[in-house]
Amino acid sequence: MNIKIENIFPCLQWLKGYQYSHFTSDLIAAVIVTIMLIPQSLAYALLAGAPPQLGLYASILPLMVYAIFGTSRTLSVGPVAIASLMTAAAIQNLGIENEIDYINAAIMLAFLSGMFLVLMGFLKLGFLANFLSHPVVSGFITASGIIIGLSQFRHILGIQASGDNVLELVETIMLNIQSANTTTMMLGIPVLLFLFWSRSGLIRLLNYFSAPQKIIKLLPKVAPVLVVILTCTLAYQFNLEASGLAIVGEIPRGLPSLALPVFSNGNWIDFILPAIFISIIGYVESVSIGRTLGAKKRQKIDSNQELIGLGTANIASAYSGGIPVTGGIGRSIVNYNSGAETPLAGFMTAIGIALAAMTLTGLLSYLPTATLAATIIVAVSNLIDFSILKKTWNYSRSDFIAVLLTIVITLLSGVEIGVLSGVAISIFLHLYKTTKPHIAEVGQIAGTEHYRNINRHKVITYPEILTLRVDESLYFPNASYLEDQILQRIAEREELKHIVLMCPAINEIDISALEVLESINQYLIELDIGFHFSEVKGPVMDHLKKSDFLEHLNGKIFLSQHQAIEGILHSNYQNAKEKPGF
Amino acid sequence: MNIKIENIFPCLQWLKGYQYSHFTSDLIAAVIVTIMLIPQSLAYALLAGAPPQLGLYASILPLMVYAIFGTSRTLSVGPVAIASLMTAAAIQNLGIENEIDYINAAIMLAFLSGMFLVLMGFLKLGFLANFLSHPVVSGFITASGIIIGLSQFRHILGIQASGDNVLELVETIMLNIQSANTTTMMLGIPVLLFLFWSRSGLIRLLNYFSAPQKIIKLLPKVAPVLVVILTCTLAYQFNLEASGLAIVGEIPRGLPSLALPVFSNGNWIDFILPAIFISIIGYVESVSIGRTLGAKKRQKIDSNQELIGLGTANIASAYSGGIPVTGGIGRSIVNYNSGAETPLAGFMTAIGIALAAMTLTGLLSYLPTATLAATIIVAVSNLIDFSILKKTWNYSRSDFIAVLLTIVITLLSGVEIGVLSGVAISIFLHLYKTTKPHIAEVGQIAGTEHYRNINRHKVITYPEILTLRVDESLYFPNASYLEDQILQRIAEREELKHIVLMCPAINEIDISALEVLESINQYLIELDIGFHFSEVKGPVMDHLKKSDFLEHLNGKIFLSQHQAIEGILHSNYQNAKEKPGF
Repeated sequence: MNIKIENIFPCLQWLKGYQYSHFTSDLIAAVIVTIMLIPQSLAYALLAGAPPQLGLYASILPLMVYAIFGTSRTLSVGPVAIASLMTAAAIQNLGIENEIDYINAAIMLAFLSGMFLVLMGFLKLGFLANFLSHPVVSGFITASGIIIGLSQFRHILGIQASGDNVLELVETIMLNIQSANTTTMMLGIPVLLFLFWSRSGLIRLLNYFSAPQKIIKLLPKVAPVLVVILTCTLAYQFNLEASGLAIVGEIPRGLPSLALPVFSNGNWIDFILPAIFISIIGYVESVSIGRTLGAKKRQKIDSNQELIGLGTANIASAYSGGIPVTGGIGRSIVNYNSGAETPLAGFMTAIGIALAAMTLTGLLSYLPTATLAATIIVAVSNLIDFSILKKTWNYSRSDFIAVLLTIVITLLSGVEIGVLSGVAISIFLHLYKTTKPHIAEVGQIAGTEHYRNINRHKVITYPEILTLRVDESLYFPNASYLEDQILQRIAEREELKHIVLMCPAINEIDISALEVLESINQYLIELDIGFHFSEVKGPVMDHLKKSDFLEHLNGKIFLSQHQAIEGILHSNYQNAKEKPGF
Repeated sequence: MNIKIENIFPCLQWLKGYQYSHFTSDLIAAVIVTIMLIPQSLAYALLAGAPPQLGLYASILPLMVYAIFGTSRTLSVGPVAIASLMTAAAIQNLGIENEIDYINAAIMLAFLSGMFLVLMGFLKLGFLANFLSHPVVSGFITASGIIIGLSQFRHILGIQASGDNVLELVETIMLNIQSANTTTMMLGIPVLLFLFWSRSGLIRLLNYFSAPQKIIKLLPKVAPVLVVILTCTLAYQFNLEASGLAIVGEIPRGLPSLALPVFSNGNWIDFILPAIFISIIGYVESVSIGRTLGAKKRQKIDSNQELIGLGTANIASAYSGGIPVTGGIGRSIVNYNSGAETPLAGFMTAIGIALAAMTLTGLLSYLPTATLAATIIVAVSNLIDFSILKKTWNYSRSDFIAVLLTIVITLLSGVEIGVLSGVAISIFLHLYKTTKPHIAEVGQIAGTEHYRNINRHKVITYPEILTLRVDESLYFPNASYLEDQILQRIAEREELKHIVLMCPAINEIDISALEVLESINQYLIELDIGFHFSEVKGPVMDHLKKSDFLEHLNGKIFLSQHQAIEGILHSNYQNAKEKPGF
């Protein structure tokens, strides 16, 4: 094996050509992303049900580690909405409530996710993530976005509500809505409306007043920070906590100590499955955004090295006491648009967050959770996108069914069952389609050597020869279907003397299908009907040659369909019964 | 829908043409099968852990019902080894030990299996059984045979031993072997050896003495009956029960009353999954033997009607207080070889068993369980067949892996996990193969219009045109693999001006793959490389036309690969950039 040091440390590739101009661009992007990340880190820790500092810790070391091991130049790694939601769901499912246990559980999930991703990377199993098809992932993200958004309304209203799925959330919100806290709502609802408005109405307004484009572009990014500063000040100044406003509360000042907590009881086994879910969903989301951004600058993402990059980032998060991390969509786009050239921007962002953890925690302790909840709701509203339903409906009903079921099941049963169902449904629908493959009877297009479907083209056929093109590999789920189809057509055509199986679309004949072909051949021998094959692929032929099928075959193997028809018509073959030749 | 009464009652088909000669043949077969079934019914009830009469009851009404609703003329339905083993495993897993509860559980499994099969039949879901590929079923039956055989040795040795899998069985046998009962062994071991010898050595001996062929053919079938009579007499005469020989014990005389037991507690939900396993395995085994026997006489098995036939037989078994039933391999072959012409033979067998239940129960109560165990061991030794390992090894490694893992997992983890693993492994291996499809570069075979793999044939190619033939449908698990392959080949060939994707083997392009094709197309537009398709199948083209892919395509769709090459070579196409035509 040829291992290059640059493949292990992809940062060496961009460090070699690093220039001063890159540094300026990276620094500007880092400052913007840092400002954006401070409230987001706290918010996603809240979403994960963990103390706010775990979100900050997850935004320091993991970014540095990803800058070393990751292959995307502009991906911004840190706590993200869906991974945080899944973290909360997993810990609640395990019935953990005590705060220390909860923190340890969140860290454990980060650690196990990281180990799993690194393992996948070493085994080069990145392709497994492909089983999460893109429509399923889109549907899953949309449904998760709705669940996350709904789950945050309790903070805007100042009520108790909980649940893994939409039904539970709506039910508990409805039950408790009467006890909504006025102070919280008076603050939360305007903040929420302002944040939404800053993305649309405000921009239109500024355009109307011909404000400089720089300000117009910057404002939506700065709006959450303005809101954080404003609401912190309000909460502090008017002691709103006394009127029932929930605030973040004391955040330990300074940097995390680097150590894994001691996982005393042996229940870490229970965390493996949730950790796998979190890491796979995070990985798929991350690689997808990484590829999209990479394509714009012709930078390639190595899907196996990404496993290592994200895996080590999660292990780093666990060592510094943080929650699971992955590449975030929103923040990677901001990073990219702010001009980040290399992962050094991520490295500098990490320094920015570290500085914040050392200096701003006093101020941030007055931050109302309603403000964070509003930030989350606005952020996840970008994830909700039903256009995939329309796109799949137009293109293919089976893709549509997969997406629709994924959305519905995720909304009704929560994220873990939702994503599992999405994969299972996609695989089932694919297999279902292959159980009853398209079998076309073909004939010759006059004047050519092309043989096409008799129902789609005007073709020449012969009553004594039936040519069937099977548009699917022959394997165990569909082997007996082929038998039924052939036997039925034989029963319908008495004058039949030859059957040709045209095989350009048969990519595999497994042993179940081989046994069926043997039984068909046996049957055709008794009926004195020839059984021929044309256009058999090389790899399929290699397999057939390993069995004794060809020795007993009541017909020939032809290189092309045209040769098959010519051969049968002009050789009085029906009386010949030769051994097949290759 | 066109429903014929003959399709609902397949018996009408053979009743119409029934002749006296059929009656004689059926009667002879019925007598032989009855004699064989009496000890077998008791033995499989023992294997299921149920009282012996449940085996007899399962051999009366179900045979009559199958004769009415089943489509196989010679299949012999009744208690069978593997269904009985699975029944015992399911009830033990549910922790039921009390005898009344155990009986009710066995009956419940028969009832639920029956309901499930009938439901599958009405929904025409027989094709789902195809997911149990033939090699997996072979492996599963072999492993089950070993487990069954091992589980019976405790009766031969007169010891306690238990377990769902080989490890547990061997361990408990080893632990208790010291307490083996001498009387039991003195009877059990000779019986076992005699039964094995009656199938081989005895026949050679009789041939040596030129005994009449009729006797030679009859003796192996009569041997178990002789052993039953002999050991019953010995046990009765010498009161061997007093020396520790286990006997069947009192069997209620007469026919069962027709009623379902009251399933008082609501735990029937727990029985659904085991019932599904039992019925599917039973169904697959049964249809497989039914097809094999049917093919010899050109009689067709209707796989959906078989679900109804076996389902109603199981419901009948439950109503008459019996254990789950299905078509048995050994006894169906005996029925066929004894000359059975129609299911009336099964009907008459049922009458024979009913007579036995009314008259012979007194004698049979002295039957040593060691005799039954020996009968079971000899019967299942026929199921154990490792030749499928050799066959699959030669033909295809992935089939071999599926069989080997099915055997090993079944042996180590028991039947339920074994059969589930078999299906899962088969599906996984198939999907795995499709994730990295065979992609061949093709060129023209000189003087023909055929385009074949450049590595297998001497072909003509052009430096500016790359034609790739993808030998697999494009769908979510392999979509990004195609992208990687194309990008890599572009990087290797600077002179490239056109890529042709030759699609005869592409039976589906799902939306994930479509998105990948769109991204490849986008990339090729930037590089000014044409992107063409040839030999796209009709159904695939129908889908593509529903998207806007063809409008943005940087190339053309050609009916044949030859037209693609000619078109590109002779039309200065690279400067044309027309809209694709169809």
